[in-house]
Amino acid sequence: MFVFISSCSHAEKKKNVSVVSISHSTLERVEPPNWFVGLRNTSLQLLVKDDNIGTSKPSISYVGVSIDKVNKAKSNNYLFIDLKIDKSTKSGKFDIIFTFKDGTKKTHTYELKSREKLAEDYIGFNSTDAIYLITPDRFSNAIESNDVNTKLKDTSLDRSDGYKRHGGDLQGIINHVDYISDLGFTAIWPTPVLINDMPKGSYHGYAMTDFYKVDPRFGNLSDYKKLADKLSEKGMKLIMDQVANHCGLEHWWMKDLPFSDWVNNQKNYEENIQNWNWKTNINSNHRRTTNQDTYASEIDRKGNNEGWFVAGMPDLNQRNPFMAKYIIQNSIWWIETLGLGGIRQDTYPYSDKEFMANWAGAIMKEYPNFSIVGEEWSYNPLLVGYWQQGANNKDGYASNLKSTMDFPMQKSIIDGINEEESWEKGLVKLYEGLANDFHYATPKDIMIFLDNHDKSRLYTEVKEDATKAKMALSYILMLPRIPQVYYGTEILMNDTAKPGDHGLIRTDFPGGFKGDKINAFTGLGLTDDQKSMQNFVSKVLNYRKNSEAIQDGKTIHFAPFKGTYFLFRIKGNETVVHILNKNEQPITIDLNRFTEVGLEGKTLKNVISGESFVWANEIKLTQKGSIILTTK
Amino acid sequence: MFVFISSCSHAEKKKNVSVVSISHSTLERVEPPNWFVGLRNTSLQLLVKDDNIGTSKPSISYVGVSIDKVNKAKSNNYLFIDLKIDKSTKSGKFDIIFTFKDGTKKTHTYELKSREKLAEDYIGFNSTDAIYLITPDRFSNAIESNDVNTKLKDTSLDRSDGYKRHGGDLQGIINHVDYISDLGFTAIWPTPVLINDMPKGSYHGYAMTDFYKVDPRFGNLSDYKKLADKLSEKGMKLIMDQVANHCGLEHWWMKDLPFSDWVNNQKNYEENIQNWNWKTNINSNHRRTTNQDTYASEIDRKGNNEGWFVAGMPDLNQRNPFMAKYIIQNSIWWIETLGLGGIRQDTYPYSDKEFMANWAGAIMKEYPNFSIVGEEWSYNPLLVGYWQQGANNKDGYASNLKSTMDFPMQKSIIDGINEEESWEKGLVKLYEGLANDFHYATPKDIMIFLDNHDKSRLYTEVKEDATKAKMALSYILMLPRIPQVYYGTEILMNDTAKPGDHGLIRTDFPGGFKGDKINAFTGLGLTDDQKSMQNFVSKVLNYRKNSEAIQDGKTIHFAPFKGTYFLFRIKGNETVVHILNKNEQPITIDLNRFTEVGLEGKTLKNVISGESFVWANEIKLTQKGSIILTTK
Repeated sequence: MFVFISSCSHAEKKKNVSVVSISHSTLERVEPPNWFVGLRNTSLQLLVKDDNIGTSKPSISYVGVSIDKVNKAKSNNYLFIDLKIDKSTKSGKFDIIFTFKDGTKKTHTYELKSREKLAEDYIGFNSTDAIYLITPDRFSNAIESNDVNTKLKDTSLDRSDGYKRHGGDLQGIINHVDYISDLGFTAIWPTPVLINDMPKGSYHGYAMTDFYKVDPRFGNLSDYKKLADKLSEKGMKLIMDQVANHCGLEHWWMKDLPFSDWVNNQKNYEENIQNWNWKTNINSNHRRTTNQDTYASEIDRKGNNEGWFVAGMPDLNQRNPFMAKYIIQNSIWWIETLGLGGIRQDTYPYSDKEFMANWAGAIMKEYPNFSIVGEEWSYNPLLVGYWQQGANNKDGYASNLKSTMDFPMQKSIIDGINEEESWEKGLVKLYEGLANDFHYATPKDIMIFLDNHDKSRLYTEVKEDATKAKMALSYILMLPRIPQVYYGTEILMNDTAKPGDHGLIRTDFPGGFKGDKINAFTGLGLTDDQKSMQNFVSKVLNYRKNSEAIQDGKTIHFAPFKGTYFLFRIKGNETVVHILNKNEQPITIDLNRFTEVGLEGKTLKNVISGESFVWANEIKLTQKGSIILTTK
Repeated sequence: MFVFISSCSHAEKKKNVSVVSISHSTLERVEPPNWFVGLRNTSLQLLVKDDNIGTSKPSISYVGVSIDKVNKAKSNNYLFIDLKIDKSTKSGKFDIIFTFKDGTKKTHTYELKSREKLAEDYIGFNSTDAIYLITPDRFSNAIESNDVNTKLKDTSLDRSDGYKRHGGDLQGIINHVDYISDLGFTAIWPTPVLINDMPKGSYHGYAMTDFYKVDPRFGNLSDYKKLADKLSEKGMKLIMDQVANHCGLEHWWMKDLPFSDWVNNQKNYEENIQNWNWKTNINSNHRRTTNQDTYASEIDRKGNNEGWFVAGMPDLNQRNPFMAKYIIQNSIWWIETLGLGGIRQDTYPYSDKEFMANWAGAIMKEYPNFSIVGEEWSYNPLLVGYWQQGANNKDGYASNLKSTMDFPMQKSIIDGINEEESWEKGLVKLYEGLANDFHYATPKDIMIFLDNHDKSRLYTEVKEDATKAKMALSYILMLPRIPQVYYGTEILMNDTAKPGDHGLIRTDFPGGFKGDKINAFTGLGLTDDQKSMQNFVSKVLNYRKNSEAIQDGKTIHFAPFKGTYFLFRIKGNETVVHILNKNEQPITIDLNRFTEVGLEGKTLKNVISGESFVWANEIKLTQKGSIILTTK
């Protein structure tokens, strides 16, 4: 790549501007589209794209803004301009003037906005929260006019096909924030809503073709802000699902890549672009252990990190410093623009891990109370633990990542709830799985879940046993964790017809679409089991919302015993008791075993039924299920 | 407990001795039976047991030896005498005179021996070694006259019963050291040979009834020393199997316990001793995760650590400081007496973990190059890793334990070798299992094995597929580990008739017993598969014995590919290639994938067949199995 240093001093530029007549032509792209004053990091790198812009010389005249360096790319149609924005710079607009060798000029008006809140006030999701995960295409279709956009490549709309678009949108979520809030959730994580202008199958949103644009089928930036604002008004948090690892094959830059190493395996792509058949063998080997494995071969390590996630998702090369800055600034732009309450970062172990640490570090430095959760889909606690900030990694890796996803416990819980009780099976899987917390840097910052957009639904996993579904769900809501529930799990949505099928996992939420005969928002047409589960979730979450014991208490659990498993959460005067009971027949449990918890003689309330229970010598458990008792 | 301080100064004692006439009566017990001069730790605590000895006042007159403190026990029949042995003390014998209140005296002659080698020269087993594990009762019966001892409670001798004694002895092992050495092993770990004077079923040796006495059915101390000396002559190491967690119910002290807290749950024992039915409910709950689990309840933690391993094995209370010293001194006594090359410590996570750290620390301080391996029977690498010295444990626990046992890899290998290949199954279990090494403090100090005295035999585990047995075995012999092989695995001994049955796992070694028609020592009557396996083990181990690459080299492995898995060990000019191939049909593998290893053009030798192979573009694998190639 070629680089030249701008020789313009701030003073010179200012003088120039004052005497030159400006033609306000619009450039193809300047990204980030705007920026903010008052950030801790005073650098900003603009990506400028326009015909032959690389042959121009940019200048700016604005108090507090100076050009540090102008970087040419390999493609003449790009410039990367390093700006310095002084701490004292005021918000406002200014022109960037691009002067070509023949004396012609182009101008772009750029805006520095003021910030809407203090850096410290961007509070990320944490263990006080409960997160509702939504696949926007499948939740609620409020605006039918945006369902099909003929300017986009995929104009499908077919609710009978799990892999086509169904029409859900941001307004659909906005309309039902109250429903979500009433259930007791305090945060929403919609899977990506940025544009995926892909020919097919990209309703899921993970093949972004413009990192600064909302997909018009979901709405626009103003809708996204409306959702953020509505949540904010209710004290809820919006979590953005971001993807640093890859883009969609139809991303605008794929037709004119700025550098020869903008994406990984770019040479292969460029040589085959005419006949790109989505199967060219540059896919990731998915050997994620190479990130940690000290014996891993270089070829495997590269195969994981530089391979494309799938052939339709070019792998971004974050070792290119311009790409690195692009991704970091994109994240910060969205945090500022939407006032985010967290980021969920996709496919974490497929990206360059040093970059990911820098990315998360840059965000956390800017927003000290923010949260990011990274997806490492592994059932191995060693790998999950490795990624969390504070891990004592032997290789010294420090991720800056506050939260990871608890795939290991997810599996332990599903297995343990389903299995017949024995020495090694059943509830002991939950007990020993949770015991692994001794390894994690900060267990309560880990996100726990039972299902998500990629995993078979809870109700299907427990063989459509509603009691087991409640047992599993109430357990995760009691743990020192940040619980995440997938939309519809509260009404026992399932993928039983074809377990694990992505289209089916992401079934339409009943009541979210015009003509739905069942409406889960109103309860219309729900079965008794569904209503009971919905009520159960609401009762537990609304208790959890105000429970310091659950959110931040001490944890004590007792080894499973006679088909039961007792877990206690304790803070101050509040003790919450969670009992899992697998016995089909009534059983009496001697409470003297739990003396160390100090509940003797206390009256506890059943969180679901409201009944009182005096903690004395024994408890009679009349049926299989879960019980939550509280001293509060 | 009561304590009084001896007021005798060294000078006074010396004066006394010179004028008093001594009656050389023998006390019931003084332990350790002798001690050594020149140890770093200059303290020694003698356990003295004799009728009413607690009412006497001991004195010693020997240059360099002084009594620091005399500790009474609860039982009047004990004294615990703290001695100080100056660095300069000379070896020799001296009398300990016990003066009773009525003026009568008893005398015990105690010996301080000189050390046979320097502390630094006690080199423990390490990754240069390969360990042969033997169940002494089942390996070879050299001396039939010791098979039954009518002074002992169990006089059974029945080779047809897997739970009775079979007659194997120390001399049997001594007679076959050459066989073991020729196979390429460099260390022997016999399961315990100390006396188990139990009424039945204690042929395994883990219910010791005297920590200072060899079981006469195995021989005597002199035989044990003979074995140690013979091994030492051949440059081999003797590993002693010790048990700090428990003793046998018939241990001599169980009839007159020195303190009320000498064993855990002592009160329950003492109240029920008349009707002890081996089922009294004081057994361990076996919840080993309570050692690490920060959420574990106290009752569960105590249940694991203070419960008896089984009702016939009283749980030693190492929080009693006299018990703690007793165990530490016992270990040091055996190290010095036998010139040990390591200790294997039984049931590690059942003992008090602070004590275990002190115990291992005391030994390692005395013998800086020694090795101890602790048994944590868990498939969870988090637990196994926790116990190894150097682990970055969040709770700060530092075990001083050099080696742990690789149960997680044992399971991964057996599963992976047996399973059909798929994305998540088969060789990937080996690959991802080994990747977990990133977590361990020092992987090469971990003991790897495929079977042992408690686990189903390798040949049974691989469904009697001799090729798979070789694949699994050659793999563990290539790893950055200390490999351990169970006697008879080299001739495919099995427990297929009743998988997992302890008696069957510990089958008699053919040729070790008079009248055996098959003799594995000579090869007489072995099947072709057995001979082939024996030859295979010998070839691989004898190569390993001189291979710095395997013992101490760098490890690189490549993700399984087309049913194959390549692992490389590299040091200096030596590169060892290990290939596992699961394909039943011939397959050609492109070697360009392994370019980073730098073998192009080199000629390698097949360690088993001796054939040469030039590393070029490809390798044709003609049959399922393992291949070991070396540049040496």
